[in-house]
Amino acid sequence: MSFNFDLLKTDSDSKARKGRITTSHGDIDTPIFMPVGTQATVKAMSSEELEEINSEIILGNTYHLYLRPGHELIKKAGGLHGFMNWNKPILTDSGGFQVFSLSDLREIKEEGVYFQSHLDGSKHFISPEKSIEIQNALGADIVMAFDECPPQPSNYDYVENSLERTIRWAERSKEAMDNDNQTLFGIIQGGIFKDLREKSVKEMTEIGFPGYAIGGLSVGEAKKDMLETLDHTVPLMPDDKPRYLMGVGTPEDLIEGVMRGVDMFDCVMPTRIARHGSIYTSNGRITIRNATYKEDFTAPDHDCDCYVCQNYTRAYIRHLLKRNEILGVRLTTYHNLYFFIDLMQRIKDSIAEDNFLSFRENFYKKYK
Amino acid sequence: MSFNFDLLKTDSDSKARKGRITTSHGDIDTPIFMPVGTQATVKAMSSEELEEINSEIILGNTYHLYLRPGHELIKKAGGLHGFMNWNKPILTDSGGFQVFSLSDLREIKEEGVYFQSHLDGSKHFISPEKSIEIQNALGADIVMAFDECPPQPSNYDYVENSLERTIRWAERSKEAMDNDNQTLFGIIQGGIFKDLREKSVKEMTEIGFPGYAIGGLSVGEAKKDMLETLDHTVPLMPDDKPRYLMGVGTPEDLIEGVMRGVDMFDCVMPTRIARHGSIYTSNGRITIRNATYKEDFTAPDHDCDCYVCQNYTRAYIRHLLKRNEILGVRLTTYHNLYFFIDLMQRIKDSIAEDNFLSFRENFYKKYK
Repeated sequence: MSFNFDLLKTDSDSKARKGRITTSHGDIDTPIFMPVGTQATVKAMSSEELEEINSEIILGNTYHLYLRPGHELIKKAGGLHGFMNWNKPILTDSGGFQVFSLSDLREIKEEGVYFQSHLDGSKHFISPEKSIEIQNALGADIVMAFDECPPQPSNYDYVENSLERTIRWAERSKEAMDNDNQTLFGIIQGGIFKDLREKSVKEMTEIGFPGYAIGGLSVGEAKKDMLETLDHTVPLMPDDKPRYLMGVGTPEDLIEGVMRGVDMFDCVMPTRIARHGSIYTSNGRITIRNATYKEDFTAPDHDCDCYVCQNYTRAYIRHLLKRNEILGVRLTTYHNLYFFIDLMQRIKDSIAEDNFLSFRENFYKKYK
Repeated sequence: MSFNFDLLKTDSDSKARKGRITTSHGDIDTPIFMPVGTQATVKAMSSEELEEINSEIILGNTYHLYLRPGHELIKKAGGLHGFMNWNKPILTDSGGFQVFSLSDLREIKEEGVYFQSHLDGSKHFISPEKSIEIQNALGADIVMAFDECPPQPSNYDYVENSLERTIRWAERSKEAMDNDNQTLFGIIQGGIFKDLREKSVKEMTEIGFPGYAIGGLSVGEAKKDMLETLDHTVPLMPDDKPRYLMGVGTPEDLIEGVMRGVDMFDCVMPTRIARHGSIYTSNGRITIRNATYKEDFTAPDHDCDCYVCQNYTRAYIRHLLKRNEILGVRLTTYHNLYFFIDLMQRIKDSIAEDNFLSFRENFYKKYK
């Protein structure tokens, strides 16, 4: 087992913390944002561009890769690392989230989930054991226990029931592991119910994992509920293990998550809005596709050091997006991921200098 | 006028020749293949990738850029060079070819062409003077005289009539030039009629241009007719001026064109077939999107040194193309353009070593 987590520093005035995860594919300095490479590619980006913007870890989606091109094929290619030519750490999710959000006609049983592919209606079954088998074939450095992520809103009984099964599935996921190069994280569920979150943390830490994710947030609940759930849940989690807030979020969400003690984040947001013609800037999000920018020959983000902002203009990118030229989406995607990774770097620096809260205040002053 | 052409070497056993064009944005070693950047972008490529594969010059399409985003906007951006962040030479066509092939309801008059945009039906007029004005705003190093490219098949009378007007338009194009940083090429037309090609060369060289293009080929005529027209036309053209075969072609076409004394080529073929899932290899063209390559973990082209072939497999690229992932088209496009540019480099080397014909023979032995 080459996995390790060192907690290096905690901010004096908040729960923000700086750490380092060690894997056999390299180190990850936390807090970290992980670009999402759903189908063995971070949409529109090449592996070398991901390295260029200092991505230290990317995420792959088990559900998608299982369906196409299939985990057996990826295994033959030398795992995801070999298949997509990415030699740094990878994390795969358990497939659970997409099974529950994308697939048709799913039936949840104690043994696992029966579902039909959203692509062609073919029938499939994923259990904790099957999820681990698939993730083993994909070969990511960090893999996730198979869980159910209940939609929002869900009532207490449903969430409690689901949570108890997810705990049993976590035990089975752990038992199914037999690859020393992979590290299994458990997932805390419980919706927005405080006692269920408590129960989840207690049971999952009793099973024991090298890292813990917080699932079931950013799935439709109010922002206030998400932050309150974090406020309540994170302090219950072990200090000496990485904490991963799944599927989150906006630049503000990252800052708020870090302030509450979260170490890892992933989200499709920066790549998705890039494809729809929007970019993040130090002054907030803008829709660069809009006519406003037709003759704006300035950089996409006036305060950004990325390759795109140093070399291309809003007017050019708008033209490319309007003409559906691939380079348009390439440039917005590149910048947005750079923006997120650079934001996390600045957050890390501020924690190192013990002034995270003033960094946060200055960021918001400009960003809003 | 910073334009110059030096004829450096002619092959002993064929008309193949090696030369160098000098422009204020850098040198171009001929014979050269020019990637096509229709809408101020070579589809799917970034400017730095074009440099990486040693593109020495790219082409822009006046018709498209005039309609969107408009030449005035590009002029404000510092011309095409500034707009698309490309600092090496650029050539723009006259717009004529697209006016005649893409636009609706066109009416050809002595003064110019009235047409409707293929995008929104808006009405426009392009004359030789207007074409030069637009190309002046775009700021390419090499610009083309406004011409009519008659479709194939066209009868003798139509082609003769068109040719005579194109000669008058060439004179007007030349008179309209008033930018010392731009160099105007004349275009030889005449379809597949030998006497009209002769007449065209004679009249165009009398007007006098620093370079001459051969237009009206690769527009539907038989390959045999194209090669015979080249056999007949190229020897009539001045030795000391670059010769540009417009819109051509396949790897075989490039080799056959060079053998007949052509110095410059452009074609959308390598980028277009890349988007449709096909690549060129040393053994011929293959459709990498096909199921045959599903588990083919070898390089796209086994004899290629490009970044794609050194780092990615057919199986991975097939997966990306099947899932409509942008990176799939990026990788096929990158490789195909590298293949063309590398082919031209090997042709140049063979001319330098005076063994072009044996290079040609060896290429075909493998490629077919």
